[in-house]
Amino acid sequence: MSELSLLIGDKFSSSWSFRPWFLLTVAGIPFAEDAIELDRPTTRETLKSRSPTGLVPVLRIGDLAVWDSLAIMETIADRFPEKALWPANADARAIARSLAAEMHSGFSALRTVWPMMFHRRDLRHLTMGGVQKDIDRIETIWTEARDTYGAGGPFLFGAFSVADAMYAPVISRFETYGPVDLNPTCRAYMAAVKALPAWAQWATEASEQAHARGLL
Amino acid sequence: MSELSLLIGDKFSSSWSFRPWFLLTVAGIPFAEDAIELDRPTTRETLKSRSPTGLVPVLRIGDLAVWDSLAIMETIADRFPEKALWPANADARAIARSLAAEMHSGFSALRTVWPMMFHRRDLRHLTMGGVQKDIDRIETIWTEARDTYGAGGPFLFGAFSVADAMYAPVISRFETYGPVDLNPTCRAYMAAVKALPAWAQWATEASEQAHARGLL
Repeated sequence: MSELSLLIGDKFSSSWSFRPWFLLTVAGIPFAEDAIELDRPTTRETLKSRSPTGLVPVLRIGDLAVWDSLAIMETIADRFPEKALWPANADARAIARSLAAEMHSGFSALRTVWPMMFHRRDLRHLTMGGVQKDIDRIETIWTEARDTYGAGGPFLFGAFSVADAMYAPVISRFETYGPVDLNPTCRAYMAAVKALPAWAQWATEASEQAHARGLL
Repeated sequence: MSELSLLIGDKFSSSWSFRPWFLLTVAGIPFAEDAIELDRPTTRETLKSRSPTGLVPVLRIGDLAVWDSLAIMETIADRFPEKALWPANADARAIARSLAAEMHSGFSALRTVWPMMFHRRDLRHLTMGGVQKDIDRIETIWTEARDTYGAGGPFLFGAFSVADAMYAPVISRFETYGPVDLNPTCRAYMAAVKALPAWAQWATEASEQAHARGLL
């Protein structure tokens, strides 16, 4: 396997960067981190030269540039089968992919009204513009996944999978804009994700970056 | 393998339905087609009872409901490995997934301003609101895929793959709102997709449905 490097944005705000970073880190797959500050005058030019789409994240595998967080995570799962990053059970795997794809193209209200601000807590709880509907849907799918496929571990499909990485920024949003009223299954699930050492690592680095930028 | 059935919308307009239908049909995988007319007063209630998200498409595999077109297509590729619906080469496969994911979450200008109307030709060519930028990006990625990975067949990665199914509605849009100025590589690629019997089948059925609804 060629060396991996992951091009990411600011840890306090780049939710799409967080997902593959979290997957690689939780899985214990070594990679170099290549961070770009997203609010500099030169950011757009820098990204144009280093990302096929001008967006983060980008995974480099040797000379190959793989873009889009979902494709990056499918590719990581594909290249490291021993890490079992999708559920082993075929039905669970199909549902895990449905959840991941729904996050990838959906939940626009939540993503727009509640942008990820990993360094902030106790912001005003606004559920305008369909946010509550998105929260309700997320509660349903987390609960169904846990109840149906969650035996064998505390994550959506038991063991940690791509689906958990996909929803990790949602957990951060629920912390920032909450408290969100969720059932005990969902609260226990969130606690399990937040207990991962990779969560604390990202949170610390997000706060440091936010401090350095005068945001805290 | 349990029996497959695919819940889809109207063939003249439902671009997300077209993608997995096209993949299954080109691959020669038998499935039952379960169509819903999307503009009826009862549509929303019908969809709520038959789709986890209230959206089409949904793939049923026996009792399992798999939703979201990209997850459906990953699942089809996963369950029918003998059909080789992703490129066999690992680098090509990673790029094919990047292209598919970029289509899944991107190209909002093209998707909004040029909705799929499979039954229409020669509509006025409007490229407002970023449509030309989307066209330029599509020309770039199609050309790079063909030039880098296209040996061995006329499709983006040589043999027909999920990536081609993902971009098939774009070809319909280019027909409807075009002519679009594209390089010879892209024109040849579009011709190869349109030469597939599955394309003609969908086109015929789309026209029949549009006629029956008074749209032609």
